[in-house]
Amino acid sequence: MKKLSIIKIGGNIIDNPEALNAFLSDFHQLEGRKLLIHGGGVLATKMAKELGIESQMIQGRRVTDEGTLKIVTMVYAGWINKNIVASLQKIGCNAIGLSGADANCIPSKRRNPVPIDFGFVGDPSPDAINVDFLSQLIENDITPVFCAITHDENGLLLNTNADTIAYSLATALSKKYDTSLYYCFEKEGVLKDINNPNSLISTMNKQECEAYKEQGIIADGMIPKLDNSFKAIENGVSEVIILHAKNLLKKYGTILSV
Amino acid sequence: MKKLSIIKIGGNIIDNPEALNAFLSDFHQLEGRKLLIHGGGVLATKMAKELGIESQMIQGRRVTDEGTLKIVTMVYAGWINKNIVASLQKIGCNAIGLSGADANCIPSKRRNPVPIDFGFVGDPSPDAINVDFLSQLIENDITPVFCAITHDENGLLLNTNADTIAYSLATALSKKYDTSLYYCFEKEGVLKDINNPNSLISTMNKQECEAYKEQGIIADGMIPKLDNSFKAIENGVSEVIILHAKNLLKKYGTILSV
Repeated sequence: MKKLSIIKIGGNIIDNPEALNAFLSDFHQLEGRKLLIHGGGVLATKMAKELGIESQMIQGRRVTDEGTLKIVTMVYAGWINKNIVASLQKIGCNAIGLSGADANCIPSKRRNPVPIDFGFVGDPSPDAINVDFLSQLIENDITPVFCAITHDENGLLLNTNADTIAYSLATALSKKYDTSLYYCFEKEGVLKDINNPNSLISTMNKQECEAYKEQGIIADGMIPKLDNSFKAIENGVSEVIILHAKNLLKKYGTILSV
Repeated sequence: MKKLSIIKIGGNIIDNPEALNAFLSDFHQLEGRKLLIHGGGVLATKMAKELGIESQMIQGRRVTDEGTLKIVTMVYAGWINKNIVASLQKIGCNAIGLSGADANCIPSKRRNPVPIDFGFVGDPSPDAINVDFLSQLIENDITPVFCAITHDENGLLLNTNADTIAYSLATALSKKYDTSLYYCFEKEGVLKDINNPNSLISTMNKQECEAYKEQGIIADGMIPKLDNSFKAIENGVSEVIILHAKNLLKKYGTILSV
């Protein structure tokens, strides 16, 4: 099987032009077939504020109402996605920017409004990913760059978690490729002490992860990221690493196994 | 040679959801290979106003400064492009939304700042269009949908005239396809009296066009549209029609010839 690297880059890197350019250069240097998924960054929140659109929150999670959907689509699929593509083209990487609606790459289901209505939010499934089209691009040496917007195949765009998109793409493409999934963010990996970059947990299996969760060492946003990671490994992805964006080429971070 | 229809749709249709949906349904019904280019609409101007970004004008033409580039990229490549794609997917048309940066489809040159600096504005050339990639999509029954944003291959996104993009794509693709170019807008076609929809000029050659220009019957935004049209015909495009969006399937409008 041919090797494929799927890299998810978080919003904190996107907000820092220097860090983003350094990351894109490393991404380009990464050998072989690859695919990028990017998060959103603070620009959407900033724009919503300037336009007077207030973020509604339920149980600490943002609700994607109509105004918010418009802003995230503009910022993620428009400004961020096209700038990343133009920057990659500049350094010789033939990138193509995509949302899940484009060529029906990532159809997703609008989340059930009961018990909590999170608005225009979609949940993709690995089974629905358009693997044929994506592998055609990849085999033609074109690098897909996904923003975290999908669609319901019924005309609605949907705000979608970028980590879940990365999991879905990696799982679907692992049927055709020997697939590695890299979650890049602004920490060294999974840390025993979130404030100490030297407390990296360099390898972790599912059982150890459960123990860390019970101890409260793994909490908040790290939980869904790890749940997605273990699901990916269980469903055919060869390797999942959680790491700092600057360590992509070294592959230095938390290496997960089942 | 296989037939290809290239349709450019103006901003006035985009601002009217009913007219846009009717147009997209007709577009989908149009038989054979096709490609869509859309203009911008008023949303970008409205957003700029709400965000307090003032449009600078020189000689009646808008200058694309940094703030304006951000807004047009967000609105054209993000909101409008992805909504059109999602709407087409809904009715069974496998559309893919693209800017000129994606897969390096439309590299363009930033316009010379001397004598007038229009800012981040690009001029594409038919010779630079990525015909191979576009014909691969088209032959796989995928319909490209372009917004009017291109790039300079050096990392800069550029605001670009949608009529010129349509001309450039049609001219480039006419080397591979028997290409028809349709400029759809909110009038019946080229009118002798702009306020009288019954004054349609049903056919026009270049000589007649020059005479109409001298008489002042053809003026303003119609001049570059016609100049692009005649250039397209001279460079290999089989057919150019200027028509109301609602008359696309009837092909009723102003039919041009050299």
